[in-house]
Amino acid sequence: MEYKELTELVDKASELLQEKNFRAIKGLLENEMPQDVALLLEELPDKDMPIVFRLLSKELAADTFVEMSSESQEMLLNIFSDNELKAIFDEMFLDDTVDIIEEMPASVVKRIINQSDAETRKLINEILQYPRDSAGTIMTVEYVSLKKSWTVQQCFDRIRKTALDKETIYNCYVTDEKRHLIGRVTVKDLLLNGNDVKIDDIMETDVLAVETTDDKEYVAQQISKYDLNAMPVVDKESRIVGIITVDDVLDVMEEEATEDISKMAAVTPSHDSYLEQSVWQIWKNRIPWLLILMISATFTGLIINAYEATLSALLFACVPMIMGTGGNAGSQAAVTITRSLAIGEVRASDVLKVLWKELRVALSLGLVLAIACFGKLYLLDGLLFGNPYTWDVCLTVSLALLVTIVLAKLIGCMMPILAKICRLDPAVVASPFITTIVDILSLVLYCAIAQALLPVI
Amino acid sequence: MEYKELTELVDKASELLQEKNFRAIKGLLENEMPQDVALLLEELPDKDMPIVFRLLSKELAADTFVEMSSESQEMLLNIFSDNELKAIFDEMFLDDTVDIIEEMPASVVKRIINQSDAETRKLINEILQYPRDSAGTIMTVEYVSLKKSWTVQQCFDRIRKTALDKETIYNCYVTDEKRHLIGRVTVKDLLLNGNDVKIDDIMETDVLAVETTDDKEYVAQQISKYDLNAMPVVDKESRIVGIITVDDVLDVMEEEATEDISKMAAVTPSHDSYLEQSVWQIWKNRIPWLLILMISATFTGLIINAYEATLSALLFACVPMIMGTGGNAGSQAAVTITRSLAIGEVRASDVLKVLWKELRVALSLGLVLAIACFGKLYLLDGLLFGNPYTWDVCLTVSLALLVTIVLAKLIGCMMPILAKICRLDPAVVASPFITTIVDILSLVLYCAIAQALLPVI
Repeated sequence: MEYKELTELVDKASELLQEKNFRAIKGLLENEMPQDVALLLEELPDKDMPIVFRLLSKELAADTFVEMSSESQEMLLNIFSDNELKAIFDEMFLDDTVDIIEEMPASVVKRIINQSDAETRKLINEILQYPRDSAGTIMTVEYVSLKKSWTVQQCFDRIRKTALDKETIYNCYVTDEKRHLIGRVTVKDLLLNGNDVKIDDIMETDVLAVETTDDKEYVAQQISKYDLNAMPVVDKESRIVGIITVDDVLDVMEEEATEDISKMAAVTPSHDSYLEQSVWQIWKNRIPWLLILMISATFTGLIINAYEATLSALLFACVPMIMGTGGNAGSQAAVTITRSLAIGEVRASDVLKVLWKELRVALSLGLVLAIACFGKLYLLDGLLFGNPYTWDVCLTVSLALLVTIVLAKLIGCMMPILAKICRLDPAVVASPFITTIVDILSLVLYCAIAQALLPVI
Repeated sequence: MEYKELTELVDKASELLQEKNFRAIKGLLENEMPQDVALLLEELPDKDMPIVFRLLSKELAADTFVEMSSESQEMLLNIFSDNELKAIFDEMFLDDTVDIIEEMPASVVKRIINQSDAETRKLINEILQYPRDSAGTIMTVEYVSLKKSWTVQQCFDRIRKTALDKETIYNCYVTDEKRHLIGRVTVKDLLLNGNDVKIDDIMETDVLAVETTDDKEYVAQQISKYDLNAMPVVDKESRIVGIITVDDVLDVMEEEATEDISKMAAVTPSHDSYLEQSVWQIWKNRIPWLLILMISATFTGLIINAYEATLSALLFACVPMIMGTGGNAGSQAAVTITRSLAIGEVRASDVLKVLWKELRVALSLGLVLAIACFGKLYLLDGLLFGNPYTWDVCLTVSLALLVTIVLAKLIGCMMPILAKICRLDPAVVASPFITTIVDILSLVLYCAIAQALLPVI
């Protein structure tokens, strides 16, 4: 649904609400997608939102609830009766329940846990114990499991009997009596074989699986690489405990990319969308990085002060240009390598290949920029402003620029790989930190080159 | 497969190749995933690669070919006989064929087109005419279409008969006699209904679809938002022409994120992976941006020169810190908003909400940083270096810092939204350009504030 249609829907619902025509609102929303109903509810005033939510049918209510912001979820949960709460969570898939629980304060969690039956409670607790961002936290425990002695017909019966509960039925997993994962059949395989064929004869036995503790980014990479629809999740003893479907992976990939982009711009990533975050949250995610970077940048001031007596003001006027270009050159390399590491196109073991490539790129970039810089300062500024820069000053500036670019590229491509080897996050070092390091180094080099080449004024 | 396993496989294959034990190589690779076989082939020396490729079974060869880099594909196509070429492309899905054609030089394209039958040729030409990055270019034309008068049993028969050719069978589309899309049934729906039930009674008629000319990023957003497994693609007359499956969307999302990240780091995006790109390609993707940014940065030098006579060297020593902090503050806002626009969390119409939020964030960030800056300069540097900065200089610097941060945040959040409104790419303006604009503005403001507050030296 486009934004305009949504606005119209909100207007219509508000109008009907004022007329207290609840039946019409119910009819209006019943055929909309839960994602759109959630957006509509978020647009309504806080006092109206619960009224409209209670008009939704049981299934739509549960599906819509899952799609709402955690802020709105908490608000609704606080006004729900225990029966309402149970009705919503009974309709929900377990992985969605766990996602919601992870965002709620303890008192609300207690109410959710209390209303679930013993088995669900056990499963929730198990999932909550998996490490942060692991496969276990995003898997669904609802999947179709088959026995290898069954026939295709028996499998179809089983699928028909359980399909209503299962998030995906098209990938079925074959287990032995101890729940070990021993094979996989797809509904397509079942359809293409006769009803009497044994699963044992058609199942694929070489099944890719991940462990509950594997990082969810790794799972996303595997599913994307092998074009899978679902990936089984096994425990340390190779027993299947759940599956991860490709649509869960879509969310993971979007989230991971957003996180990396945030880190590269020196912002602590947040799970909430920008408009959902309070000013205080945004402030908190940005201030530490700005403070650290500002304090490190003050060192450039100290360097300038130290050289101030020996270098001309004209030379200092070029400092921002050299620093800026060095910073840009460095982040080009750093960001490219960081992204390549993230999507698995470059590995830490490629470090020499990367260095050699960046060295050649840096030299050819640096030469062109140095020549352009010389031309700009000596010819253009000379023409326009009556030659403020003599040729030896121009040469000094251009040479410093070349050295800065080579240095920036090499540091830029090495830092993310080093971070990866040290098991740190490459995205955090990717851009602003490299800029600051390059700033300081390039300034020192620039002053040193100037002192060496030019007569002291 | 992990990198280590791959290296072992490559070593083993090379060994067998030297012993000319082709049968063993065939056996070794037959059970591997095509993605891994492709990686293995890329690791082999150029002279060995075609030998090993020719050992693969017809189906594995086609699947592997699709996964290889366009460089290797071109090399293989150039040495293939027409028969070999036909064998490969006959096994391939049409959307993969089109992807390959788009990357190949004209001579190779001609050979591929020549070997296909008339109908395939017509389809290929149609797909090639869709606009760049549109839904039409990533859709597959192989899908299951059903008639509404059919029974569940008839549908199963149809699926069984055509399943081998179809990339996905779980979403089936119901069309009228003019190929108009009128409904959708899933295999799950079919399984849960009796064999005699009519499709008309169980099909969903409110089917989401995209047009061939819609942007593929929009398709990805829709599929991700509504958790779909497949999305039908229709032409201007609402006739179904293909479908896009969720695994195609995974690639789109990864590609789009990589592209945005590249642009934010002032690099022209490339479809090839970093290690596949030549030094010349990387150079070409980086040099224009560095040149433009360098030339714009030289304006800061002109500004410094202009104020040089009236402002003290001590004040100039703080310029890199102010510029750097302004740049960081600006890109925090710009990158956050750009990403939020890309994933649809913020719309251009939210411009006032964003401005108001950023203004408050900027003021609270700016105040803290200004106070920290004052403390650092007046107290810490005073203690360590014997008070180079008097309190009025410190106040000037801190005030300039506050103004710079507010300005940087406001420009940073506005520019991507303005770009979006003007139908430009927000990612291009997101980071380096904003940094350069903020650099120049903050420098002018700093000099103006200093001139206003401090006695001329």
